[in-house]
Amino acid sequence: MKKHVVLLPGDGIGAEVIQSSQKVLDVIAKEFNHTFTYATHDIGGTAIDNHGTPLPENTLEACKNADAVLLGAVGGPKWDNNPSHLRPEKGLLAIRKELGLFANLRPVKGFEKLLHASPLKEEVVNGSDLLIVRELTGGLYFGTPSERRDNGNAVVDTLAYTRSEIERIVDKAFQCAQLRRKHLTSVDKANVLESSKLWREIVEEKKSEYPDVAVEHVLVDAAAMKLITNPTHFDVVVTENLFGDILSDEASVLTGSLGMLPSASLREDSFGLYEPVHGSAPDIAGQGLANPLAMILSTALMLKHSFHLEDEANLIESAVEQVLSDGYYTADLNIAGAGKKVGTEEMTQLIVDLV
Amino acid sequence: MKKHVVLLPGDGIGAEVIQSSQKVLDVIAKEFNHTFTYATHDIGGTAIDNHGTPLPENTLEACKNADAVLLGAVGGPKWDNNPSHLRPEKGLLAIRKELGLFANLRPVKGFEKLLHASPLKEEVVNGSDLLIVRELTGGLYFGTPSERRDNGNAVVDTLAYTRSEIERIVDKAFQCAQLRRKHLTSVDKANVLESSKLWREIVEEKKSEYPDVAVEHVLVDAAAMKLITNPTHFDVVVTENLFGDILSDEASVLTGSLGMLPSASLREDSFGLYEPVHGSAPDIAGQGLANPLAMILSTALMLKHSFHLEDEANLIESAVEQVLSDGYYTADLNIAGAGKKVGTEEMTQLIVDLV
Ligand SMILES: CC(C)[C@H](C(=O)O)[C@@H](O)C(=O)O
Ligand SMILES: CC(C)[C@H](C(=O)O)[C@@H](O)C(=O)O
Repeated sequence: MKKHVVLLPGDGIGAEVIQSSQKVLDVIAKEFNHTFTYATHDIGGTAIDNHGTPLPENTLEACKNADAVLLGAVGGPKWDNNPSHLRPEKGLLAIRKELGLFANLRPVKGFEKLLHASPLKEEVVNGSDLLIVRELTGGLYFGTPSERRDNGNAVVDTLAYTRSEIERIVDKAFQCAQLRRKHLTSVDKANVLESSKLWREIVEEKKSEYPDVAVEHVLVDAAAMKLITNPTHFDVVVTENLFGDILSDEASVLTGSLGMLPSASLREDSFGLYEPVHGSAPDIAGQGLANPLAMILSTALMLKHSFHLEDEANLIESAVEQVLSDGYYTADLNIAGAGKKVGTEEMTQLIVDLV
Repeated sequence: MKKHVVLLPGDGIGAEVIQSSQKVLDVIAKEFNHTFTYATHDIGGTAIDNHGTPLPENTLEACKNADAVLLGAVGGPKWDNNPSHLRPEKGLLAIRKELGLFANLRPVKGFEKLLHASPLKEEVVNGSDLLIVRELTGGLYFGTPSERRDNGNAVVDTLAYTRSEIERIVDKAFQCAQLRRKHLTSVDKANVLESSKLWREIVEEKKSEYPDVAVEHVLVDAAAMKLITNPTHFDVVVTENLFGDILSDEASVLTGSLGMLPSASLREDSFGLYEPVHGSAPDIAGQGLANPLAMILSTALMLKHSFHLEDEANLIESAVEQVLSDGYYTADLNIAGAGKKVGTEEMTQLIVDLV
């Protein structure tokens, strides 16, 4: 198989962890006889510095012509006081919208060696394995009007969805549930929002197309509680953009492995952008300390979702489990028992060797 | 002091716990030489059954003429399939709006005897004592348009705020912080929402009026994480309506004492509506099993905020702490060590005796 991958290192530790992905892809290519070609482009703060915009035309074009995109991370204190159109995260929002990446998949799973670092009691968190399917290109993030009014004395944002936007994310979530434990939790605020009412209606309509999936509706406030009191209750959770932003971040700290979590942002075909959930960690950037595992697991998601290379993806995922159970860890991880602390390169090499 | 209190039992266990409040108020009246008069009115499902609407005119008028309102709880499966204008929670939303109850105060504090029931590790949750100040009459809850469009193929909700709506809730939060540990966390999504940008600007403007309060801005997704990983970080948290709905429910499960949490919904003067955070618990309604302590603590909040009776409020709060440390508990509580299980009446009597 021959695939072209655009690498967007972004800011902070992005560049270091993207390198790790490339090394892992190269060994996968060799072992399985694939050809991966790469092109690296700027996004975020780096793009603001080099091109005066967080998402240069050039970067966008390259992504459109690629089979998939790997993104490191964007943001940093350097750009924190920039005007809003010159902020690194605008690049992220723009690329999602421009590439039509409507489905954000965020799996949250504990690693045995890290579970003790969870803020939750072991008996509560043990066995959690959930997937948040977040709508990524609609809702309050992109609705208009979003503006000041009345001489700056009032403001509105708009939560807007079309039926087809809701349908496609709900379909995606049902399909994910079919490949997992066949349980879908749809999260909304149907007791208040008209958009949530339509959302709930569509989930109800779609049920019959996926008779093997059990469906429940949970209000967003109740979901925020239940994620903490009973995280093992959940299998697949589907929700709109902003609820998904909040709940997926909430879920990301449950298992004590924030530095380990990957994400996939998918288009309707198999194209996607893959990035770790963690940020750009400017404080440790350039020091060779960054944990590359979330980026490497994001790369595995790319192989699975965009290239349908299940075996290759599984191999990487097993390698990550293996290095952790062998006691290797990076500075950000709080591992149980005796361990061996390693840097970005060493950790990457361990994965490469196992693959 | 002579005060008139409207009692809104609502649905489920509401009637039982409202009775407890009245008993406690009666003994406070006697001990401190106050006169409390009461009038009871329907709201929620009960009001739908008796008057065909979740907030009868009559109930609203009575509340407008009262010095404060105590509310039990609304909702239940009986009305779950009603059309949206005939749902119990519409009564709650309408009364908030009609009475101008813009500031929802939700204190979350652990009780030593209950902390072990927290889903969080003791070392994480120990010492948490925070207050969420939620804007209650604006934002997505009441913004227009909120409607289907394009023959039902699209939908919008509107997140709307005026400058003065934001100013008054931010002032309220600063004032709360001044009476506590002088730390204010303002939660928004200023990297995406225009309304959050205005919110953040107003918090920045107001800072100089409260120089003794330390202020930070946290994005809502980061706040959802930090509440779990580091709940003791927070003192006062101020946020808009829907973020407040989600975060206050999230916070309510942290200390293992959901059945114990009170809330206050305040107007610009001292008028307010006070209700427990827990719901109407239809499964145990009418059986004398309900935990009246959250309602009783809500009553203490009423004495404090609406009637400025600090001593009386403190007496009730101490009594609640006392009964718990004496090992008394209701069926919903999971108490550490040996305890004595009691029903609603007995629990209420214990408080009355201590007061
Ligand atoms: C940076 C920010 C705009 C973004 C979002 O809110 O979507 C981030 O929080 C995320 O979840 O990817
Ligand atoms: C019942 C519902 C409309 C209400 C809300 O969302 O405000 C409730 O969740 C609350 O927090 O009081």
